[in-house]
Amino acid sequence: MKKIRVPEESVKRLSLYLRNLNYLSQGGAETVSSDELAQNICVSAAQVRKDLSYFGDFGRRGVGYNVKSLISEIKSVLGLDKKWSVTLVGVGRLGSALLNYPGFEEFGFQISVAFDNNPKKIGKIWKEVKIKDSSKIEKMIKREKIKIAIIAVPASAAQEMTDTLIRAGIKAILNFSPRYLSIPKNVNIKTVDIAMELGNLAYYLTHGESEADLFS
Amino acid sequence: MKKIRVPEESVKRLSLYLRNLNYLSQGGAETVSSDELAQNICVSAAQVRKDLSYFGDFGRRGVGYNVKSLISEIKSVLGLDKKWSVTLVGVGRLGSALLNYPGFEEFGFQISVAFDNNPKKIGKIWKEVKIKDSSKIEKMIKREKIKIAIIAVPASAAQEMTDTLIRAGIKAILNFSPRYLSIPKNVNIKTVDIAMELGNLAYYLTHGESEADLFS
Repeated sequence: MKKIRVPEESVKRLSLYLRNLNYLSQGGAETVSSDELAQNICVSAAQVRKDLSYFGDFGRRGVGYNVKSLISEIKSVLGLDKKWSVTLVGVGRLGSALLNYPGFEEFGFQISVAFDNNPKKIGKIWKEVKIKDSSKIEKMIKREKIKIAIIAVPASAAQEMTDTLIRAGIKAILNFSPRYLSIPKNVNIKTVDIAMELGNLAYYLTHGESEADLFS
Repeated sequence: MKKIRVPEESVKRLSLYLRNLNYLSQGGAETVSSDELAQNICVSAAQVRKDLSYFGDFGRRGVGYNVKSLISEIKSVLGLDKKWSVTLVGVGRLGSALLNYPGFEEFGFQISVAFDNNPKKIGKIWKEVKIKDSSKIEKMIKREKIKIAIIAVPASAAQEMTDTLIRAGIKAILNFSPRYLSIPKNVNIKTVDIAMELGNLAYYLTHGESEADLFS
């Protein structure tokens, strides 16, 4: 058994390929060339072939990749060939928006339980998800063996919540709280910071064109 | 006038520093060391000093950075020392969630007009933002001289909408539509793909620990 290191950027692109392949498949496409995939993702065809080669070579020269089998291979590599149960912590403005987010389903993510500390919300059902008391997090997540959490609490509460989630056995966190969270090495975290992305765009608007050039 | 190239990653971190500095400032902090900033962002102190040195050296050895002036310097560098008028295209489930998103204000972004093609929505006011007919996009954006757009339309409509926005003079796009969008070189785009981030987390959950190692 050979252990190879897959660059993080390749892992990211796999999700993009998958998205694109789903789209092609819905449109009735049966095969796709690395050139087409490359164009749709905005990388080189060589990069596509390299990314996919980490996981075995599924393409055939002159024929391209079979869309359906590539979808199933990538899903399997990413661990998306099964359903993931996800918990949402914080059902405020952003959290309730996330309960509405249509993108999770496609990837097999299901928010199975949500938590909030607001007594007005506890016990309510929002988009088929029951909102539970935050004080029950540790017990419930342990019992349900949930491994993925989405954090949408205010910045001031985020670290304490993170510590609780990790004690409960959470191994992957999607963080919408606008602050750095300290986590142990065996836990993964991705932070989505929408305003920050706009901040980056504002920088390039201010300093001209799409180049990161600065006059000093 | 010297032209220096600022790495994209440094630009990204500037927004993170800003976020953190705002947080420190709210807590009453007057100065901060590069060590503290580094810890909060999870990079090395040397990296912090390097990032900030691209824009002039604001720190003083043994004293650290003045929180207020660093906030104002970073805001100015990022172009966040003024208000940005933003348009939202698509007021479906995700779009209306974004009208709710509390993060924009902090960075000076204001959604000034939203568009949708659903007659039931057109003319309504949602969170103080008037929803206009999508067919008016080009005319209105030109008139209001808006430069930043948030795209939250379904994947099938995203490219056509993008072309319209670019004809109207949009120079920066925050894309929530789950597909690659073709844009000219002088337009910037950032794609936020929440399900994809979960996909990446699922990969690391499946393949163990926080290392991108794969057994093959």
